[in-house]
Amino acid sequence: MAFDHRKYRPGPRIDLPDRRWPDQTITQGPRWASVDLRDGNQALRRPMDVTHKRRLWELLVRIGFKEIEVGFPAASQPDYDFVRLLIESGAIPEDVRVQVLVQAREDLIRRTFQALEGIPRAIVHVYNSTSPVQREWVFGSDRAGVKTIACHGADWVARAALDYPDTDWTFQYSPESFTATELDYAIEVCNAVVDIWQPTPAHRCILNLPATVEVASPNIFADQIEAFGRSIDRREAIILSVHPHNDRGGAVAAGELALLAGAERVEGTLLGNGERTGNLDLVTLAMNLYSQGVDPGLDLSNPEEIIAVVEDCTDIATHPRHPWVGELVYTAFSGSHQDAIGKCLKRQRPDAPWQVAYLPIDPSDIGRDYQAVIQVNSQSGKGGMAFLLEREFGLNLPTWLRRELAPLVQRASEAAGGLIDAQSIRDLFVAEFIRDQHPVALQGLTLRAQGPDQLELRFGTAGGEQRASGTGAGVIEAFSQAWTSAFGRDFAVIDYQEHAIGAGTEAEAAAYVLIEQDGTRHAGAAIDRDSLNAAIRALVSALNRAALAEDERTRTARTSGEGHARSQRQPDQRLAV
Amino acid sequence: MAFDHRKYRPGPRIDLPDRRWPDQTITQGPRWASVDLRDGNQALRRPMDVTHKRRLWELLVRIGFKEIEVGFPAASQPDYDFVRLLIESGAIPEDVRVQVLVQAREDLIRRTFQALEGIPRAIVHVYNSTSPVQREWVFGSDRAGVKTIACHGADWVARAALDYPDTDWTFQYSPESFTATELDYAIEVCNAVVDIWQPTPAHRCILNLPATVEVASPNIFADQIEAFGRSIDRREAIILSVHPHNDRGGAVAAGELALLAGAERVEGTLLGNGERTGNLDLVTLAMNLYSQGVDPGLDLSNPEEIIAVVEDCTDIATHPRHPWVGELVYTAFSGSHQDAIGKCLKRQRPDAPWQVAYLPIDPSDIGRDYQAVIQVNSQSGKGGMAFLLEREFGLNLPTWLRRELAPLVQRASEAAGGLIDAQSIRDLFVAEFIRDQHPVALQGLTLRAQGPDQLELRFGTAGGEQRASGTGAGVIEAFSQAWTSAFGRDFAVIDYQEHAIGAGTEAEAAAYVLIEQDGTRHAGAAIDRDSLNAAIRALVSALNRAALAEDERTRTARTSGEGHARSQRQPDQRLAV
Repeated sequence: MAFDHRKYRPGPRIDLPDRRWPDQTITQGPRWASVDLRDGNQALRRPMDVTHKRRLWELLVRIGFKEIEVGFPAASQPDYDFVRLLIESGAIPEDVRVQVLVQAREDLIRRTFQALEGIPRAIVHVYNSTSPVQREWVFGSDRAGVKTIACHGADWVARAALDYPDTDWTFQYSPESFTATELDYAIEVCNAVVDIWQPTPAHRCILNLPATVEVASPNIFADQIEAFGRSIDRREAIILSVHPHNDRGGAVAAGELALLAGAERVEGTLLGNGERTGNLDLVTLAMNLYSQGVDPGLDLSNPEEIIAVVEDCTDIATHPRHPWVGELVYTAFSGSHQDAIGKCLKRQRPDAPWQVAYLPIDPSDIGRDYQAVIQVNSQSGKGGMAFLLEREFGLNLPTWLRRELAPLVQRASEAAGGLIDAQSIRDLFVAEFIRDQHPVALQGLTLRAQGPDQLELRFGTAGGEQRASGTGAGVIEAFSQAWTSAFGRDFAVIDYQEHAIGAGTEAEAAAYVLIEQDGTRHAGAAIDRDSLNAAIRALVSALNRAALAEDERTRTARTSGEGHARSQRQPDQRLAV
Repeated sequence: MAFDHRKYRPGPRIDLPDRRWPDQTITQGPRWASVDLRDGNQALRRPMDVTHKRRLWELLVRIGFKEIEVGFPAASQPDYDFVRLLIESGAIPEDVRVQVLVQAREDLIRRTFQALEGIPRAIVHVYNSTSPVQREWVFGSDRAGVKTIACHGADWVARAALDYPDTDWTFQYSPESFTATELDYAIEVCNAVVDIWQPTPAHRCILNLPATVEVASPNIFADQIEAFGRSIDRREAIILSVHPHNDRGGAVAAGELALLAGAERVEGTLLGNGERTGNLDLVTLAMNLYSQGVDPGLDLSNPEEIIAVVEDCTDIATHPRHPWVGELVYTAFSGSHQDAIGKCLKRQRPDAPWQVAYLPIDPSDIGRDYQAVIQVNSQSGKGGMAFLLEREFGLNLPTWLRRELAPLVQRASEAAGGLIDAQSIRDLFVAEFIRDQHPVALQGLTLRAQGPDQLELRFGTAGGEQRASGTGAGVIEAFSQAWTSAFGRDFAVIDYQEHAIGAGTEAEAAAYVLIEQDGTRHAGAAIDRDSLNAAIRALVSALNRAALAEDERTRTARTSGEGHARSQRQPDQRLAV
């Protein structure tokens, strides 16, 4: 059977019962090292040309990277040329250190230093692979032989550097395939390298521990990092760096746990480009720190630019659910989520710690907009619909009206097979609840408000114009009296709400009213430049809806009765005016 | 400043110095619960129609999921209809349990049970949100009030179930926003729910702990899960479940660490679809277990089908670097990686534990092919090129020939701006190293091999046909003598290799020869149905290349001299025959 787990063995794990990392907290950003132009570039179907490399380089500098691995100049002529271009065009800011990768081979190391000639400061990153399978199957060697490779590499690097005394050199060594290497052997090799380089606390070297292939859960990686840091010689003269890959989808977690475990430096790429499943995504890790109140030390305020440049350089689209920056990340489709977000956004004070449900950060921090937060689909329920009506049209519907509108929106959305936009929701609201024309149309209104309100109304009906007047302690009471006198029907006002839309002289008023007639409740609404008109029209709307519902009931009763086919049309004709 | 980390506070963490999870190992797959049809579906721009839901349901069943959350039937008519369809069409296998979500509201719970009427077994999953911001800002309530919501929900569920005694009910409760909830309060609420449900070890209920929004690194989630499991009442009557989201890119790691911490059940989706950044990707987690020798209990042998169905249902493309299944995941671009993979694949025995560098699993386990493993680009170096020539054409070039071919391939690849395919590499090899026609063409060959080899050769040259014969202990010695007698030039054979291409009577032979002439080494090669012909033609190729190189040197010397413009063409004309 092909699909058979028994072919595999777990990755190595170490015994570290007194581990300390799970009790640590990250309180500051690490040293960031971008390997976009090397590890990222080497994993592309179509490696970047010099224009794209330059564009990506400039983005990395702008974001704030101070250590940028730009290539493998001894193995690739384009990489060599790009290093020369950076040096000769003066593109390297004073606080940025170019890093280049090289295998532990003398000819390649020589050529690497040639590539860097004239650079004010640089990191030479030498590596060889140390895991058992690499030692035995790839190099046909053993522990001693592979350690010798590392030592020779370190020695050649140190000697070559002497020929370029005007450059401020930093040396970096990676025991490639570290996570698949026996820990004691990795430490032995690194100690041997460090012993050759003789770093000091004032002039440290970098030991970079790669999860070349991610072979275990991130806690095991953290154990390895902590154990390494506790056992390595001259710890104070070493910058402990990690380089996680994402084969198990755990690169970011591995990086975070490694920082807890004592790593001080993280290598990775923007949005995680790199061999196979990619490298640790520096954007996600930095945003994770940011969202916990930790200064990441990188400026990620413009992920749109990051996405644009990275996509242009890699020709790989960003996943719409990519943490922090994906297109769908600040979009809530679920109704309960939308409701909660809407409530929280109302209560969130600008100067208070952010705590909006379902939005781990304020999207506007990174140039994303609340405008994009909420879309409404058939699964959304009342919250999203209400949020959209308020945001787009300033309509703050009462709960009882939302409850009536929601199923209409849901049905319309289902009928449309998915989403519904704000304008369609407003159209549904207007068509259903602003009903001040049929069967009764409000045609005129005069109010005398000296003493008790005296209201005179002029209505249009199927039977012609109808005048009515009423008096009351307020407009609603006066209207009730007038309506009852004109049409002979009692009703009670259960709730009434009105609010301004917009501000100043251009403002309109929205009014919402809930009435009860013959034991049934009916909502109505109106929008008008005049707040009194809005209130009266909302009342008429509610009463018209009551009449229409009554007609509907009558018709249904007749239809289900013995078929007065003709007479049952009558209400419809009346309504059609 | 918009991009300001000081707006944020870290998520809650708990004090668990005696945590045990970091010393645990996962030895078996968890209970898997797919929420693709609910959490995944509700996060889509265009929710699935019934055809897509059915297609995804069938895939989930085929993969081996036994618990599948299919919707929120009380909140969505399409979800309701789909549940009815599953029940009425008999689409639910006997060992599969449909799960439905419902808020802790009596009317919704009633309707949920109506939706499930007639189902033989099902999980009713009731939830309410418990974090401080949800309690205070969203529900305008407090600890006591929100606990009451949970208790009412549990009670309504238990009561409603009594009305459907023919169904085997499992109850599930989620304290939504668990990871942002004070642990003691989450435990208090869950204990209250469990106290209502009175589960037993024989009839357990599910407590599902969601990272509704991922707010901390996965080790903190694991601490929360372990502490919860250690403190909850009736632990043996509870199935402890987790539901991680991926806001910090750590959902899979959170799931893995939660399993170490005592979780027995994992909710997630195929390829991680779901709200915002998505859910835990069940494919990745299961493959992580698989690659460590743990039986995941799911059949993921056909990820192409999974990708096809999920993409069809979600309209979201799978990232090419998606762990385990992405298009680029088994592709190595880097030369050293390719070299290592090539060497390991040769030594990997089918019955031994898999240990191929840079390939965490055998791609063929999941229907991916070695054919797709290696592509060669300008960064690849010798290893990938050699691997491709061997895989595609059976050509096993000696190291010294690879070293000469590599820069040609690299240059061609760079000139093409990226990749180069196997055929182009072979063309480069043939054009450069099989040179048995110019300036000297091998036209005839007779060997008498009784006693010492006697070789008679017929060459075509610019000056006409030339015959030669030689004798030696072997063919090469005989050839050397013949050549020297014909052209008056000595040479030494430094290395000679020959191998069959293919098998049986159709096999060809490839020969590679390295000669030294006047202190310079030259490689030559030939491919021929006859192995003797191949050897001799390879020798002629090497000698021709030596002559061409000599001509080139001569011409360069003349050009850089005083300009014998006409005479310097002569060698070219001779070569042009």
